[in-house]
Amino acid sequence: MRAYRSLEWHDSVIRMLDQRLLPDRIEYIDYTDYRDVAGAIKAMVVRGAPAIGAAAYGLALVASHSTARAVAALHDELVAAANVLHAARSTAVNLAWALNRMLARTAAPNLQSVDQIRQAVLREAHAIAKEDIRTNKQLDLNALPLVPDNATIIHHCNTGALAWVDYGTALGVIRTAHEHGKRVQVYVDETRPRFQGARLTAWELKQLGIPHSVIVDSASGHLMRTAGVDLCVVGCDRVAANGDTANKIGTYNLALVAYAHGVPCYVMAPTSTIDLSVPNGDAIEIEERAPDEITCVGDEQVTPDDVQVKNPAFDITPARYITAIITEMGIAYPPYEQRLREMVERAEAARNAQESASG
Amino acid sequence: MRAYRSLEWHDSVIRMLDQRLLPDRIEYIDYTDYRDVAGAIKAMVVRGAPAIGAAAYGLALVASHSTARAVAALHDELVAAANVLHAARSTAVNLAWALNRMLARTAAPNLQSVDQIRQAVLREAHAIAKEDIRTNKQLDLNALPLVPDNATIIHHCNTGALAWVDYGTALGVIRTAHEHGKRVQVYVDETRPRFQGARLTAWELKQLGIPHSVIVDSASGHLMRTAGVDLCVVGCDRVAANGDTANKIGTYNLALVAYAHGVPCYVMAPTSTIDLSVPNGDAIEIEERAPDEITCVGDEQVTPDDVQVKNPAFDITPARYITAIITEMGIAYPPYEQRLREMVERAEAARNAQESASG
Repeated sequence: MRAYRSLEWHDSVIRMLDQRLLPDRIEYIDYTDYRDVAGAIKAMVVRGAPAIGAAAYGLALVASHSTARAVAALHDELVAAANVLHAARSTAVNLAWALNRMLARTAAPNLQSVDQIRQAVLREAHAIAKEDIRTNKQLDLNALPLVPDNATIIHHCNTGALAWVDYGTALGVIRTAHEHGKRVQVYVDETRPRFQGARLTAWELKQLGIPHSVIVDSASGHLMRTAGVDLCVVGCDRVAANGDTANKIGTYNLALVAYAHGVPCYVMAPTSTIDLSVPNGDAIEIEERAPDEITCVGDEQVTPDDVQVKNPAFDITPARYITAIITEMGIAYPPYEQRLREMVERAEAARNAQESASG
Repeated sequence: MRAYRSLEWHDSVIRMLDQRLLPDRIEYIDYTDYRDVAGAIKAMVVRGAPAIGAAAYGLALVASHSTARAVAALHDELVAAANVLHAARSTAVNLAWALNRMLARTAAPNLQSVDQIRQAVLREAHAIAKEDIRTNKQLDLNALPLVPDNATIIHHCNTGALAWVDYGTALGVIRTAHEHGKRVQVYVDETRPRFQGARLTAWELKQLGIPHSVIVDSASGHLMRTAGVDLCVVGCDRVAANGDTANKIGTYNLALVAYAHGVPCYVMAPTSTIDLSVPNGDAIEIEERAPDEITCVGDEQVTPDDVQVKNPAFDITPARYITAIITEMGIAYPPYEQRLREMVERAEAARNAQESASG
């Protein structure tokens, strides 16, 4: 999978795998302007956590190509760019988290020249990418005991290497179970409207040699009732302080259906996706996307002309339908509030300790 | 809507609207051979109840074009053709019901010539089509009190004029409510994999001037949680004696999601779809359809090559998740067993009384 990293930085250029073309074609696009990076996030050239990496490296582009001579001027440019990048995907809390972290770093009092900021920004973007890999590997290991041998798993959307910089969350735990010798088979929700499951997850599972079947999103209940399903795993875009989870549209239906069958539903959530400032899911804004995601599939129009469409890109799964939330710090069971807070604080402390150690 | 009847008989030819081309093109195909009619049912040129009409008229084609000179020989041809037509859609009980009714009629002792059988077969096919219209209109009227004014409704698959000979079941009740001056708006489940909702239901609602928005099937929970939904209406392919209902894949998920939100879920079921010989849903065979329904949308391939697919065409909704089953004889509430039996028997008695009167 290493050959298909979703995102890389080469000499002041961000190179991104164009996920819209998968599984048909493997094509990379080079970006040198942060506005194009914001456009790519919006257009879903890149999605999930690599969008976070893209945003972080987007600020590195700004710093790298800036002609500013004063520290304050460069910092203003970075703040303006961060706003543009954040607007590209406002539901994803870790995008805001990464941008804020980058800005905080560039405002550090010890940075006294434009060049120092330039280096600091790039170092921080690299650190975020590296942490992402380490975090996900740990998260996947933490979830491993939840996957029985011979497990049948339903997976929604795409949460693998393509959705992250290198390894993935919900698909990562499937991969980790597979690599640890557990037999797993996966029902892959196709994930309308954008088919991230049918296109990306199926493609990744094929690369990994993990048995899988693509299903329509609405077949999950039928399979739980007739074929036996052991667990559902999903990623998340944002987890509120109480455990309510924003994720790709269809996650809530899957969680409700799993709940009705007594099938556990696990949310894989790096602590960077936990937003303690949001008390519950009702406070999370849901992005509405363009109608043509529903009315057209490629060049194929499936609806009558000018049809009205309702296309929420995400939904909120209330915490009571989530069996456990797994982070790189461990497993949280309901009620979530205290445990999530504790895990976020521990993760922050660990990051701070590491920063102090590395200087 | 009258202009777009799904099925008509003209001088020993069955003319069918090719529903696969909607909403792009309105094209009719003429059939003179029952084997082509079976093929059309299998290929979903025609679906839902018109498939039943098509099967009935299919036997009329056999009788009309047969060169048999003996009553027994013609009857053998009809039985053989009925088997072929039945195999085209084995999950739909009313197809078997219509074929059996046709065969029973042709075996009546008073028919003593090939010509008499020929006429009887055609008369019976016309009667089935006519009954279908009357039955659905009554069923829709029976359901009318269940639709409040200003109702927001989720509708799955296609159950309108295209799914029936002239009026429809679940979409028929929406149309009836609209025609009775109730304000309704419909969230149209697109209904993967074949998009019957996005293609056909949206098209019919547009013709009828009823406000509607197409949604992905997995968005129903999000809309119930955030937008308010008053009821769900679905059709059915077969209802077991205990009320378990076989219908288009995704019906079960919708019913579970509605149940979790306390939103009523109504099944519109002409008594011809109630199969008292089947005790419960577990005894209903579920048709698996071809993988390319999931892997391709028109010419657009959405999955990697050679991907494995699981494509059940129907699912079973256990009776406990169904708020009421509405037939042309009235409304059944749980427990269903006795009331369904009574309604089927009353419908049969009414049919027999009418036959005696007319015949």
